[in-house]
Amino acid sequence: MAERTNTDPERMEKIVSLCKRRGFIFQSAEIYGGLNGCWDYGPLGAELKKNLKDYWWRRTVRERDDIEGLDGSILTHREVLTASGHVGGFSDPMCDDLLTKERLRADQIEPQTGVAYHYTGASYPDTDWSVERPYSVLIYPDQNQDENKARKIAKQYYSQFLKDQQLSPKKIQLAGETSEPVENTTRYNPATGSLVTEPREFNLMFKTQMGASSSEDDPNAVAYLRPETAQTIFVNFKNVLETTRQKLPFGIAQIGKAFRNEINPRNFTFRSREFEQMEIEFFCHPDDGLRLTDEWLEERIKFYGEIGIPREKLHILDVPDGERAHYSKKTYDIEYEFPFGIQELEGVAYRTDYDLGKHQDHAGKTMEYFDEQTKEKFIPHVVEPSAGCDRTVLAMICEAYDEETLTNEKGKEEKRTVMHFEPRIAPIKAAIFPLLKKSEEQVRIAREIEATLSPLMNVFYDESGAVGRRYRRQDEVGTPFCITVDFETLGDEGEELKDTVTIRHRDSMEQERVAISELPVWLIKRTR
Amino acid sequence: MAERTNTDPERMEKIVSLCKRRGFIFQSAEIYGGLNGCWDYGPLGAELKKNLKDYWWRRTVRERDDIEGLDGSILTHREVLTASGHVGGFSDPMCDDLLTKERLRADQIEPQTGVAYHYTGASYPDTDWSVERPYSVLIYPDQNQDENKARKIAKQYYSQFLKDQQLSPKKIQLAGETSEPVENTTRYNPATGSLVTEPREFNLMFKTQMGASSSEDDPNAVAYLRPETAQTIFVNFKNVLETTRQKLPFGIAQIGKAFRNEINPRNFTFRSREFEQMEIEFFCHPDDGLRLTDEWLEERIKFYGEIGIPREKLHILDVPDGERAHYSKKTYDIEYEFPFGIQELEGVAYRTDYDLGKHQDHAGKTMEYFDEQTKEKFIPHVVEPSAGCDRTVLAMICEAYDEETLTNEKGKEEKRTVMHFEPRIAPIKAAIFPLLKKSEEQVRIAREIEATLSPLMNVFYDESGAVGRRYRRQDEVGTPFCITVDFETLGDEGEELKDTVTIRHRDSMEQERVAISELPVWLIKRTR
Repeated sequence: MAERTNTDPERMEKIVSLCKRRGFIFQSAEIYGGLNGCWDYGPLGAELKKNLKDYWWRRTVRERDDIEGLDGSILTHREVLTASGHVGGFSDPMCDDLLTKERLRADQIEPQTGVAYHYTGASYPDTDWSVERPYSVLIYPDQNQDENKARKIAKQYYSQFLKDQQLSPKKIQLAGETSEPVENTTRYNPATGSLVTEPREFNLMFKTQMGASSSEDDPNAVAYLRPETAQTIFVNFKNVLETTRQKLPFGIAQIGKAFRNEINPRNFTFRSREFEQMEIEFFCHPDDGLRLTDEWLEERIKFYGEIGIPREKLHILDVPDGERAHYSKKTYDIEYEFPFGIQELEGVAYRTDYDLGKHQDHAGKTMEYFDEQTKEKFIPHVVEPSAGCDRTVLAMICEAYDEETLTNEKGKEEKRTVMHFEPRIAPIKAAIFPLLKKSEEQVRIAREIEATLSPLMNVFYDESGAVGRRYRRQDEVGTPFCITVDFETLGDEGEELKDTVTIRHRDSMEQERVAISELPVWLIKRTR
Repeated sequence: MAERTNTDPERMEKIVSLCKRRGFIFQSAEIYGGLNGCWDYGPLGAELKKNLKDYWWRRTVRERDDIEGLDGSILTHREVLTASGHVGGFSDPMCDDLLTKERLRADQIEPQTGVAYHYTGASYPDTDWSVERPYSVLIYPDQNQDENKARKIAKQYYSQFLKDQQLSPKKIQLAGETSEPVENTTRYNPATGSLVTEPREFNLMFKTQMGASSSEDDPNAVAYLRPETAQTIFVNFKNVLETTRQKLPFGIAQIGKAFRNEINPRNFTFRSREFEQMEIEFFCHPDDGLRLTDEWLEERIKFYGEIGIPREKLHILDVPDGERAHYSKKTYDIEYEFPFGIQELEGVAYRTDYDLGKHQDHAGKTMEYFDEQTKEKFIPHVVEPSAGCDRTVLAMICEAYDEETLTNEKGKEEKRTVMHFEPRIAPIKAAIFPLLKKSEEQVRIAREIEATLSPLMNVFYDESGAVGRRYRRQDEVGTPFCITVDFETLGDEGEELKDTVTIRHRDSMEQERVAISELPVWLIKRTR
């Protein structure tokens, strides 16, 4: 992992608040307390995300001869994910707190040192019940090493145990008690001091039952929500090869939702359970894999520049041996400096012939490619630039967010919140104002401009409040251009300015005049 | 339901075959035998579908001031769907065949008339087992009324029953036997003659477990895949109202996947388990509901015309009382003449204040709207134009498909398969050919044209084979324009035609010459 920079939780809080306030991102099912790890994009967020996806599709699929698009299903056949190794291996080791039943990631239970109190069993006065299970509680040296506290936790454990057996004794006596200092020997939940189970593998895939099977446990009825879009591409490799006339090297690209049952969704939309990926699987001759991995890294860094994420905010991690997936010969992580730390936006992984090979074996169908020139037959290797769509949206939002202190006409300091979105991904490309709402002529012309522009791009009409306030509202959602129809437009200040409008630039706040007839081309040039 | 027209299964078969052959639509997980009810869009299908969605979004969200976009999560909080009635009521009545355990839709078990053979029980020689359950088998009059067959089915039933009890008797004797003619009295599986259970409700939602709960049955961990995108809109109504400055009437629109565990996926992609919807919820004053329902119907019919589905192939069904959802005051089904029958593309339903009211009650959060002009406070009513995206894609494909018989230059008849896609939704807008692959100059110019056009639209470069064959390949995938760089382009036939290309029209097959410099505007005008 790259070195962490200083984080800025206050900045992050402001960004989250703006996202909610201006309709970029809402918590899913908010009125019911929210669905953990799931998010809904509001009006502006939906536009922003669509712009990113459309631009990626244009650059990746439409502008390139050597990449084909695909749009596969989310529900996935269990054999696809058995072959890929996800059914058996896509899991995190987890421990259960014996007392609270809380499930914890094993890697978040750090080794502890302290004094363990062991209780060998419990008996219940006025009954003939006794529980023989031993139980331990760890009391840390920096806390009060209180035997009573340990005994209380042990009693809670036995109570919990009895409750599970649907018994309810009034009093518990602990049968035996010893204590000893321990160091990293047994696993305890740091929050409770209570013992946890040995780590067990917990699969991160969402599972569902499909079809009309009358049995809930019919294994043939199990289907999964795909944990990555990549496998949909691999299982369609031959279909695409046979229906297009592509030759190696060529790629298949897909944008779509994927799902992982993350234990701890966190950092706003960054680590969520439902997320969208933008993936390319670029198939090639084995000799070209390493070179193409480097080329794709450069290509992808360029892409981030084009959507407003500058090179200097990206960190490239050349994932060292032992930390890569076992099948990967080379992996780069493209990371961004989020306010909550440096985190991965995209992985560019050389996956060799691992996936196609696995599907060939498991499905018993050849995945080989025949090179007509060299007469060579082989399973293609693959380079995978896999970007997180929601993470990239979040990076664009974090990068765009700015608070400026301006001096207004009266010499007073004012705060301006502005989103410096790259115009091509900005949710609203231009806002259109009549200077005066009362001027029927200004309103008519402004509405005409809106009607001309709206089939070409997303624009926003606003006539309410002072122009300065309208500018501020647009700054806060990152609209790069504000177009004002004013007295000059009507010819009140002479023929020269007639049929022109004021265009105010978001970032520099400078203004210029442009002829109405030139607006479509002027704007398209600056927002594509 | 509207009257069925004649179906044309042969035409449908050809369409399905073309979709596979040219990379429009593949079966999901085909190499593993397929995932029933799920489909993957190949390179051309993905473009076609994206064009439809983009055009819908443009017309619905971007060109209208009074509609906001939304893009919500697929995973849905159980309380959302409890409030909406889906958890309790979104189900089909199903019967289980007592013999085969097959689950059947109750409404597909049509009343039967025949002779029922009743067997009152079975005993097993050389054991002390006996089974007292009575069992009936229906033998139809038009089949051979064979007592032996009835007895055989009854024995199978008892064997099956014993197998479930993990017993395996070698011989069964039926204890008693009577027969009687019956008419619609009991339910039998028409395929086996075997008795089925009474109908029971079978919920059509896909369910999954979310979070790290250690218990598989924790009801708090249940989440659903949304069965419609509409509920995501309703639960965000207040969020959108508060973050935009919309006033009634206004709408919220969304495109996204939804999931229903259909018992019998059928008719290619028409009835599938994973599908995409394009939904508008248009909120209004109660007085405006009926009028707006009619207006939206007209608006949506216009839309279908714009994507190449003519009015005369649409059937509008004014769903009569008693057949509408119980909360709907008015529903129109927009149906299309598919080769497999007249089937619904879209419903335009006046849902009243049912959904917002249910969420207000269930979440305990107000959904009321305050009209500042009239000082009125009320729960908005809603009109819902809800279109099936995959169904519309399929309708566009069916509508476009054509086989023409042409007479070629030598007077011979030739078959031409052509997809008459409306240019704005065609997957490839223009194909670009050098007349001769060997002419370096033609290839260079054709590649330049490709580079100019590809950031603007999806184009396809092809240099292999005779031009006539290249035309046919493009006809088959519905490319409206083919651009050929030829000798005239190079100025070989004089200055006048220099820097012009031949454009061949797909439908009329006529050709015209256009200057290279005019191509972008010429094509944009005809394909937007």
